[in-house]
Amino acid sequence: MKFSQIVEALADQVTASSLDAGLDPQIEKIAAIQDAPSGSLSYVEGGKFAAAIETTHASALILPDDSDLQAKAVARELAWVSVKNPRIVFARAIALFYQPYRRAPGVHPTAVIDDAASLGESVAIGPRVVIHEGAIIGDRVCIHAGAVVYPGARIGPNTVLHANCVIHERSQIGENCVIHSGAVIGSEGFGFVPTATGWEKMHQAGITILENGVEIGCNTTVDRPAVGETRVRQNTKIDNLVHIAHGCQIGEAVAMAAQVGMAGGVTIGNRVILAGQVGIANQAKLGDGVVASAQSGIHSNVRAGEVVSGTPAFSHKVYLKSAAVLKKLPEMAKSLKAIQKQLAKE
Amino acid sequence: MKFSQIVEALADQVTASSLDAGLDPQIEKIAAIQDAPSGSLSYVEGGKFAAAIETTHASALILPDDSDLQAKAVARELAWVSVKNPRIVFARAIALFYQPYRRAPGVHPTAVIDDAASLGESVAIGPRVVIHEGAIIGDRVCIHAGAVVYPGARIGPNTVLHANCVIHERSQIGENCVIHSGAVIGSEGFGFVPTATGWEKMHQAGITILENGVEIGCNTTVDRPAVGETRVRQNTKIDNLVHIAHGCQIGEAVAMAAQVGMAGGVTIGNRVILAGQVGIANQAKLGDGVVASAQSGIHSNVRAGEVVSGTPAFSHKVYLKSAAVLKKLPEMAKSLKAIQKQLAKE
Amino acid sequence: MKFSQIVEALADQVTASSLDAGLDPQIEKIAAIQDAPSGSLSYVEGGKFAAAIETTHASALILPDDSDLQAKAVARELAWVSVKNPRIVFARAIALFYQPYRRAPGVHPTAVIDDAASLGESVAIGPRVVIHEGAIIGDRVCIHAGAVVYPGARIGPNTVLHANCVIHERSQIGENCVIHSGAVIGSEGFGFVPTATGWEKMHQAGITILENGVEIGCNTTVDRPAVGETRVRQNTKIDNLVHIAHGCQIGEAVAMAAQVGMAGGVTIGNRVILAGQVGIANQAKLGDGVVASAQSGIHSNVRAGEVVSGTPAFSHKVYLKSAAVLKKLPEMAKSLKAIQKQLAKE
Repeated sequence: MKFSQIVEALADQVTASSLDAGLDPQIEKIAAIQDAPSGSLSYVEGGKFAAAIETTHASALILPDDSDLQAKAVARELAWVSVKNPRIVFARAIALFYQPYRRAPGVHPTAVIDDAASLGESVAIGPRVVIHEGAIIGDRVCIHAGAVVYPGARIGPNTVLHANCVIHERSQIGENCVIHSGAVIGSEGFGFVPTATGWEKMHQAGITILENGVEIGCNTTVDRPAVGETRVRQNTKIDNLVHIAHGCQIGEAVAMAAQVGMAGGVTIGNRVILAGQVGIANQAKLGDGVVASAQSGIHSNVRAGEVVSGTPAFSHKVYLKSAAVLKKLPEMAKSLKAIQKQLAKE
Repeated sequence: MKFSQIVEALADQVTASSLDAGLDPQIEKIAAIQDAPSGSLSYVEGGKFAAAIETTHASALILPDDSDLQAKAVARELAWVSVKNPRIVFARAIALFYQPYRRAPGVHPTAVIDDAASLGESVAIGPRVVIHEGAIIGDRVCIHAGAVVYPGARIGPNTVLHANCVIHERSQIGENCVIHSGAVIGSEGFGFVPTATGWEKMHQAGITILENGVEIGCNTTVDRPAVGETRVRQNTKIDNLVHIAHGCQIGEAVAMAAQVGMAGGVTIGNRVILAGQVGIANQAKLGDGVVASAQSGIHSNVRAGEVVSGTPAFSHKVYLKSAAVLKKLPEMAKSLKAIQKQLAKE
Repeated sequence: MKFSQIVEALADQVTASSLDAGLDPQIEKIAAIQDAPSGSLSYVEGGKFAAAIETTHASALILPDDSDLQAKAVARELAWVSVKNPRIVFARAIALFYQPYRRAPGVHPTAVIDDAASLGESVAIGPRVVIHEGAIIGDRVCIHAGAVVYPGARIGPNTVLHANCVIHERSQIGENCVIHSGAVIGSEGFGFVPTATGWEKMHQAGITILENGVEIGCNTTVDRPAVGETRVRQNTKIDNLVHIAHGCQIGEAVAMAAQVGMAGGVTIGNRVILAGQVGIANQAKLGDGVVASAQSGIHSNVRAGEVVSGTPAFSHKVYLKSAAVLKKLPEMAKSLKAIQKQLAKE
């Protein structure tokens, strides 16, 4: 593809480009700036990677709207395009060259589809998929090999289920969702009541609902509750190996990094960001826009817009200072003793 | 179902009820008190939810043995039953309306069952299940779609294996166990011996044993050891994404929340409770009744009955105080310096 | 097997033995010293287990080169062999008695293998395995039941894929690797660009490469990046439920314990050891030989050879002292206040 074609495809984001200068190389692939070979298009997000412009082998660059960076590209005779949001443009440029694997419509003969299940139009059902009675599969759904859909689950149009994932009974998955390999949706919540001799099981009669545009990472688990619903609202993106317990209510456009875990009945607002390995206790409520840093342990409610860190989690600003003191604790303890001794003498 | 029928079914727990007052609504479902629609039965565990009685749309309530709460229900003309343990009664009430999906007995034609495997009576084997040579499947076992049983594994009567779980060679699973979707039981422990050039593999010749009534969460892994056994004793309940390493010995009626992990050779007593994301180091021993809060990192032995928190874990009572001080560390460091300065001047 | 045959098989490691004294029992199995029955061979790694020699029921022992331990064994009339590295010798002794289950060569009739996939010689393909178009399976590869190989993936000679694991499109797996049950290799990295209304997906056009001799634990996930590659270098061993994000570069002979997680673009040197539940932030670089203790949270670069602990991680030596002070924080805060009061009075 010619560089000029790429610039045209991204036109609504473009603020300036080297096309006027006549530079229009053939682009074969997209690459990270430090690894980019000749014939590739790369991007520079900001000042941090500016030096890389001087050494990259890329033939063309996506730049922010920054005349210094443009000058650096010009100096190296590289094609360039300045854009409003280089990262989004990079994502869109990748999509010009690459589309993820998706099965062609059709039902593989080894798929096991119950007579009492319903399939939409143009579905693509892979080998060894199992779809149980009462399941409803929307139009253009793509289900990869080995996935299992329990009775009565509904999968919305255009949704993709990856290999060996499991959708449990009565779960409702919206449109344009992606469930990655090995994820388990709508499984029984961890509901046991303590008794004198052990644990009595509480059946999990509720359901799990994933709204439209939700993405669930590989081997992530989203449980259903005893009563009511576990719900993940639209456009929320969840990474691998995350655990969402029974009865959690997750807002819209939330992002959760890998290995986050939350106990039962947690409520999370819209546009919350949870970094890796964050844990959230039973019934805690996080307001809209909360950000929690990696490994935070959230024991209680967090107000909208707060940034928290640490276990138990508190203000990130204070945390940074506290964390810096942690290394000095032994020294502080020693100083304190010395002072006590001195004062005692006096 | 009439409310009176429910009260009758739960009779051994009942201490008082509104039946004498003639209130006997038709109950269609069970619901959480804040979401309960008309025609539903809900429960109040204690004082915390008492206010909800004043606003709930539920038609009937399970209450603790508490005349204040009864009076609140009477005031709203709601049917009510007071019981010894509202949570257990709620669990039993759910079971009156809901039973989890279980396959009817029979072997699906797409299941692959080795001639040298043995199936008990009334087993229910789903589509695409694979059972290898020498495996022994007990009476009334239910194995859902895509589960794999390696050679020589034994599954006890009434046990349920959910979709796409894997039971490795020679594992022994007791009666009335539930292995949830994607869990892996009896896989090779992480056994490598360091050498000058890398790692030499230690074969894992031992086995994994789950005793009766054990429940293993989705995508949880329980490894087998090099020699001897990994054992989970009866009635222990383990949540999703937990890791039990080779050679661990887990007591009876233990509960582990999601994402708990333990290194090799850990010993855990009876009725221990581990909250989410707890980690336990190599060879540590936890006595009976230990409770560890979420994200605790247990580096050494913990005596029976202790409650621990933090990393490295110590007494929960002390932890609560220490954690409260963490936020004040920067201020403490400053004060300390000021004092040192002042004393130096003097 | 006679004890003398075992000693002969391990000859290159032997420094001394009881064979001269004529003790040559029949050995039926290998066992841990505290559980060892008569007829078994066990091992003592060092002083810690020395007392166990006095009570074990083992018939023969592998000992380090230590005359005190030899004397203890002689006193109990046990056969013994002293070796350079008892743990390696124990591993090799296990291998004399036990080899892990491996399928015989052949393709099970229920495997679904695309006509445009390529199978090497003597492959062993289990029931319900799915291999898509363009996949290349090396000689003597063993693929267990239910594993799924997406289009264009390559599996090197002698590699084993365990049950229900998933190898995503275009992944490259080397020779002599083991991918354990439920692991997912080469899945889409968690790539989303924030927008005004939510998240825009960045397609993950890169690939995941596992070099020779890599082992990946059960339900572990290794993602592929938007561009370029995620790479795990040779002889690296990764335990269960680990998350390796898009674009990470993992060195040679690294060991990662269970539930370790790392964000995108992390670089890890050779022979690094990460204990359980360690987390590593975005783009951090760990030099060769770094060791991180369990639950460490690594936020920034770590120099070669450093041992780190805590969150945020710092020198393990300092950490041990700081951790000891944590319990005393409430007391320290109190002392500090008392001093301030006293000084104010003066």
